[in-house]
Amino acid sequence: MKNKRQASLIKIEVINYNNKEFFEKKLQDPEELQLYRKNTTVAWININTVNDRELNNYIGKLYGIHPLIIEDISHIDQRPKIDVFENYVYIIVKMFQYNSEKDEIHIEQVSFILGKDYVISFQEKEGDVFEIVREAIRQDKGLIRGMGADFLLSSLIDSIVDNYFDICDILEEKIERIDEELISKPSQTTINEINRLKREIIFIRKAVWPLREVINVLLRIGAPFISQKTIIYLRDVYDHIIQIIDLIETLQEILSGMVDIYLSSISNRTNEVMKILTIIATIFIPLTFIAGVYGMNFKFMPELEFIWGYPLVVLVMITVSIIMLLYFRRKKWI
Amino acid sequence: MKNKRQASLIKIEVINYNNKEFFEKKLQDPEELQLYRKNTTVAWININTVNDRELNNYIGKLYGIHPLIIEDISHIDQRPKIDVFENYVYIIVKMFQYNSEKDEIHIEQVSFILGKDYVISFQEKEGDVFEIVREAIRQDKGLIRGMGADFLLSSLIDSIVDNYFDICDILEEKIERIDEELISKPSQTTINEINRLKREIIFIRKAVWPLREVINVLLRIGAPFISQKTIIYLRDVYDHIIQIIDLIETLQEILSGMVDIYLSSISNRTNEVMKILTIIATIFIPLTFIAGVYGMNFKFMPELEFIWGYPLVVLVMITVSIIMLLYFRRKKWI
Amino acid sequence: MKNKRQASLIKIEVINYNNKEFFEKKLQDPEELQLYRKNTTVAWININTVNDRELNNYIGKLYGIHPLIIEDISHIDQRPKIDVFENYVYIIVKMFQYNSEKDEIHIEQVSFILGKDYVISFQEKEGDVFEIVREAIRQDKGLIRGMGADFLLSSLIDSIVDNYFDICDILEEKIERIDEELISKPSQTTINEINRLKREIIFIRKAVWPLREVINVLLRIGAPFISQKTIIYLRDVYDHIIQIIDLIETLQEILSGMVDIYLSSISNRTNEVMKILTIIATIFIPLTFIAGVYGMNFKFMPELEFIWGYPLVVLVMITVSIIMLLYFRRKKWI
Amino acid sequence: MKNKRQASLIKIEVINYNNKEFFEKKLQDPEELQLYRKNTTVAWININTVNDRELNNYIGKLYGIHPLIIEDISHIDQRPKIDVFENYVYIIVKMFQYNSEKDEIHIEQVSFILGKDYVISFQEKEGDVFEIVREAIRQDKGLIRGMGADFLLSSLIDSIVDNYFDICDILEEKIERIDEELISKPSQTTINEINRLKREIIFIRKAVWPLREVINVLLRIGAPFISQKTIIYLRDVYDHIIQIIDLIETLQEILSGMVDIYLSSISNRTNEVMKILTIIATIFIPLTFIAGVYGMNFKFMPELEFIWGYPLVVLVMITVSIIMLLYFRRKKWI
Amino acid sequence: MKNKRQASLIKIEVINYNNKEFFEKKLQDPEELQLYRKNTTVAWININTVNDRELNNYIGKLYGIHPLIIEDISHIDQRPKIDVFENYVYIIVKMFQYNSEKDEIHIEQVSFILGKDYVISFQEKEGDVFEIVREAIRQDKGLIRGMGADFLLSSLIDSIVDNYFDICDILEEKIERIDEELISKPSQTTINEINRLKREIIFIRKAVWPLREVINVLLRIGAPFISQKTIIYLRDVYDHIIQIIDLIETLQEILSGMVDIYLSSISNRTNEVMKILTIIATIFIPLTFIAGVYGMNFKFMPELEFIWGYPLVVLVMITVSIIMLLYFRRKKWI
Repeated sequence: MKNKRQASLIKIEVINYNNKEFFEKKLQDPEELQLYRKNTTVAWININTVNDRELNNYIGKLYGIHPLIIEDISHIDQRPKIDVFENYVYIIVKMFQYNSEKDEIHIEQVSFILGKDYVISFQEKEGDVFEIVREAIRQDKGLIRGMGADFLLSSLIDSIVDNYFDICDILEEKIERIDEELISKPSQTTINEINRLKREIIFIRKAVWPLREVINVLLRIGAPFISQKTIIYLRDVYDHIIQIIDLIETLQEILSGMVDIYLSSISNRTNEVMKILTIIATIFIPLTFIAGVYGMNFKFMPELEFIWGYPLVVLVMITVSIIMLLYFRRKKWI
Repeated sequence: MKNKRQASLIKIEVINYNNKEFFEKKLQDPEELQLYRKNTTVAWININTVNDRELNNYIGKLYGIHPLIIEDISHIDQRPKIDVFENYVYIIVKMFQYNSEKDEIHIEQVSFILGKDYVISFQEKEGDVFEIVREAIRQDKGLIRGMGADFLLSSLIDSIVDNYFDICDILEEKIERIDEELISKPSQTTINEINRLKREIIFIRKAVWPLREVINVLLRIGAPFISQKTIIYLRDVYDHIIQIIDLIETLQEILSGMVDIYLSSISNRTNEVMKILTIIATIFIPLTFIAGVYGMNFKFMPELEFIWGYPLVVLVMITVSIIMLLYFRRKKWI
Repeated sequence: MKNKRQASLIKIEVINYNNKEFFEKKLQDPEELQLYRKNTTVAWININTVNDRELNNYIGKLYGIHPLIIEDISHIDQRPKIDVFENYVYIIVKMFQYNSEKDEIHIEQVSFILGKDYVISFQEKEGDVFEIVREAIRQDKGLIRGMGADFLLSSLIDSIVDNYFDICDILEEKIERIDEELISKPSQTTINEINRLKREIIFIRKAVWPLREVINVLLRIGAPFISQKTIIYLRDVYDHIIQIIDLIETLQEILSGMVDIYLSSISNRTNEVMKILTIIATIFIPLTFIAGVYGMNFKFMPELEFIWGYPLVVLVMITVSIIMLLYFRRKKWI
Repeated sequence: MKNKRQASLIKIEVINYNNKEFFEKKLQDPEELQLYRKNTTVAWININTVNDRELNNYIGKLYGIHPLIIEDISHIDQRPKIDVFENYVYIIVKMFQYNSEKDEIHIEQVSFILGKDYVISFQEKEGDVFEIVREAIRQDKGLIRGMGADFLLSSLIDSIVDNYFDICDILEEKIERIDEELISKPSQTTINEINRLKREIIFIRKAVWPLREVINVLLRIGAPFISQKTIIYLRDVYDHIIQIIDLIETLQEILSGMVDIYLSSISNRTNEVMKILTIIATIFIPLTFIAGVYGMNFKFMPELEFIWGYPLVVLVMITVSIIMLLYFRRKKWI
Repeated sequence: MKNKRQASLIKIEVINYNNKEFFEKKLQDPEELQLYRKNTTVAWININTVNDRELNNYIGKLYGIHPLIIEDISHIDQRPKIDVFENYVYIIVKMFQYNSEKDEIHIEQVSFILGKDYVISFQEKEGDVFEIVREAIRQDKGLIRGMGADFLLSSLIDSIVDNYFDICDILEEKIERIDEELISKPSQTTINEINRLKREIIFIRKAVWPLREVINVLLRIGAPFISQKTIIYLRDVYDHIIQIIDLIETLQEILSGMVDIYLSSISNRTNEVMKILTIIATIFIPLTFIAGVYGMNFKFMPELEFIWGYPLVVLVMITVSIIMLLYFRRKKWI
């Protein structure tokens, strides 16, 4: 067993700290985890995979986690939720990552287990938004080294939520770009992009919305998991989530308005095209008819013999055109 | 009476088990059911019909079920619901079955009666999603053999809910297929399919939505029906239902967006068609008029006599066409 | 006074019963009603009019009903509601009747007064859905003869609600018919019918929706009006109402989808028409122009003298047409 | 000061009554109001203006009303609301008046102050819907003379609410008229009227909706302001308001449906126009082309010499037309 | 440090008052703020910047404000919110400013810290709507000098909310202007303006909506922050906010209706254009065809020889035109 895991063992990262000591290590062997259990320090164990069942089960047994929860960790299609147990709290949060190359927002599920003196976090893959927390611990910035596991969890969720704002900024930029396109040269691509954005925002909203309730429960469960001191920081996170939800709803309403604009701009353009056709056709069809009449080969058409016939007909044609043009001008078509 | 039932008697299946014994049988005679009453084992009685009134009444009397509930079993157009009585709980759940040949999702009503040591399930017809539970009991997989009737019920509902995810996958695939069609070659069939899908999802949502409340009630009624140990499993089922509802709502929003796309793509195509017509008409109608003028048979049309008359007119025509083409190019029509 | 009422006296029907006796009569004189007051039997007094103020007032005094309630009975534009007094309960329910000739759903208001041992029902006119209850009393079917006035009321409301299902079936049939029309030959009539149906359903929903709360109150008020035994039957009625509301909402969503389909089908047809026009015009207008050119009467048009002039021009015309046709084929218009 | 008020003094009307006496007067001098304070009778003081600050302040001091409330009286853009104080209750209600000449619904704000033995009402201007209450007091009709100030308030609000029903009738008539127009000859005016009606209903709903909560509070505050006897009358008013809200929502839904009908009828008409154009163009453009071909002046066009040339061409033209007509018939355009 | 702040020191304004004294000063040095701490007067400290971190931190320490709150002050993208602490209350409100030159509504965040005897307000920049409060304090108008810091806060929020009404007036004027444009000459600009207004209103609603809850919390927290006397003034502010929200929702509904009007007016105009084209084309295309027929050069066309040929053809042409015109008149196109 040990052999075949070797490669992936690097997926376990431990940071252990209190206001005096600090210790960071990438573990080779999950059994080393025992060393960081029941300590006077706060332990943050970060697992960069959710699919290593054996590892999950091992952690489950070590920390006394219910088997259903251990299973939940590897189901990555869940909504944010919180399950409170006697000895630990299980939290699912969604972390976003913007891939600027593919212009895609990737949604990753992060599971947290909060115990009295430890936080275990499970990410789908390496790469996260927690660097700021790691730095704060390493360099003893802010309050984090002097506080408990609850504050660590709060900081981790906070950095995820802060990242939501960045994602929203990207969305806003996209909307602005589409908005300009909508004014200057709307095309089927525009509406497809609007729709793609709409869907993206639906998924983002679905990922953010339930987090509000999660934090709400955290705020209410209190001791022993959440200390009084941490509450105010969690309330701050809560405010940020409300703000994000607000922002997302605003973006959705704006996108809805853009669909209206788009549809009306197509109608307007069709209307423009129709006008041009109508102006040209309405002026020249009658004239062509007149020309046609004097192109008939009847033997007895007295007008054809008149010396002033041709100039007169031309005059009639010019008059008809002018009347038509005046009519269109009065209609404000030209 | 016994004679005419003979054929359908096979509709009763009994599985009787505890952590030591296991027994499975298809009953010929409903009166055998008495043997599985008031036992130290958990009895799961599965009835593969809802229309055998006599059988239902017999079961009703044997287990002391209220006549109204017995009647409810055969009304298959109900919403999921839960009725809690002193000695038993009555639950209606909707089970989906995808018929890949007809490309239809069939909704079947399943009624459960949960007593202290038994679960009776009524299905509209044979064929269900419970095989996984039967196998778990037969092979003593998981916790099921060591737990009570409440856990059996929870497992049965769980397998129904797991099946919902499969149905949602099918719907997502359909949406993706329509989505491609929408981009490549939208037609009236596309919108009809979108609408058909919308309706299917309406029915599915109506079948799933009330289940949330059903499980909620189950979670709250507690003893003697639901043991503390089962609660966490029910909570898991509850989370899945929330997730399904979330998913269904997302699909609905996506479908709404697709209608917008469809309508705008028709408008766009009409606009395209109009442009072509207008370009052709606007170029050739004036030219035809010019040709018409010199087709007139007036005696005195000096131009007709000019040697350069014809080439000049052709030149004028070419000039007019070029001007028109430049105009259309500036309008970005061509 | 007595004289002028003679004709309408037949509007009072009394059914008096307990588990031993049964008595049914159409009364000539409202004063006979006194005989059925304060009895050991359950009295059901059915009044087939709401406008006989004198009769209403008489009943009001006889049974001690508040004058405001007596007034309410003759206001037939009310929503379903329930008013609970010390000695009686006042309930308004909406009864539907489908007139197949006019293809109209008529909504009739029925008022119930439930006392300890009597139910008084007021209908707008003769003709109701209560025959099934009358038969049950007459022939001692089911539990009704052995139970109190509360059960009678529950049965009456139940028969009204059962009728809602029939009405919904009629609506569903209509929707199916329109649905076919929508696919085969949509016209302005189709949308008008959709709209008519939408309105009908709005009115039906408004008539059904508040009944939910009415039954809810009935379920909660308990003794002395509602016995424990009746509760389960009322809960059944409640479930039916929820189901009807669910069904109505589903129908509304389906109708909304149909409007989309309709609008898109018009757009599609306009698009089709435009394509035909454009194909014809785009092929023939250039050809006509070419013909026009050689119809000009210039003295010096060398082509006209060529022997191969005419066949060459015809060749050019055929080539132009073929190019156009190929272009339209590539665009998948033909 | 007294001088300049002289003219407007007529704005104060006092009705003073109990079950024995009745007294009605239009006051010249606000100071006379003191006579009607703290009496054994019920005093109804009606002020036909809201802008006489001095008068308002005087009344405020006389009855011990909070200055903020006195200010509120003259702000006529408020929502219906209720403020409960120790000695009095302040209520704002909206009264509608239909001006049949301008076909406008005017919304007027009425403020009530309910004390233990008085009601003060402030109207924006003369003219109200309270005449029925005045008559009831004058002629001792109904219960009003035997009851307290709470019943007077209830009657006043009731007469305002009854008036809402009349307004709704007017709206319904308008909708019916527009509905006919929509079927027979829809024009831009129709949609403008629909929109105007929609706005009117928005304002009406905003004026009615909060009244529900106002009455709800009145029903709950109880003694000393509202006696048990009055409760049932207030409950009746409450039911009426619910009914009105219901009605207004129904009207809104109907109007929404009408917009759909209108838009689809324009699309249909455009479709009709397009069909006519296409039929004519598609038949005659090819024919004109044929005629054009034989109008060419080529020297060598053998067909021109044929004796049967002309009739044959005419035959071809007729055949083409018939084929086209058959095609259009098959498409059900004609 | 002191040097580089010199310029911005003018950003601190202090007003100190009670019912006897009054004192107003623009501070050079934040340390002077200590003088206004723990006094028997009410101190209003207004800071005209949110970005001077040092100043914020200084104030935070001086008044014992939690560091998170101090950070919040400079985050200007927050929603209105309230945080209640043991010794102070933190409130965020949005203040609007209409820039008539750019025709833009600027939203500015104002943070308030309410202590027992002080209010600190932080504005993004100079320029506010509080002049009316300053004047009231300076000239001892109204109650303000006799009341506490809670009343000061209430007055400040009130002046912000009063300003909302002005903004709504501006919005209403804009809507009216667009409304006229919509009737007289709708263009793509119109829909763009409608959309711009829609967005503006979305942002305004988002800024106002949460304030309702903020005031609600203020009303409930009571002593020691809010005295009984101030409650009624806060309730008044609360009513105003409800009114504003109501108004904003009404404006949104009106704007939605305007989009419908706009879309239908484009459709109508396209319809008009189509009619003109169809009328002209339908009349002249057949006539041109007839002329074309007699322009054919067949040797043997007997009609050409007839003396009455030409007048007869003209007659036929006139007849055809008249029939067409009558047809269009019957269709009410002309």
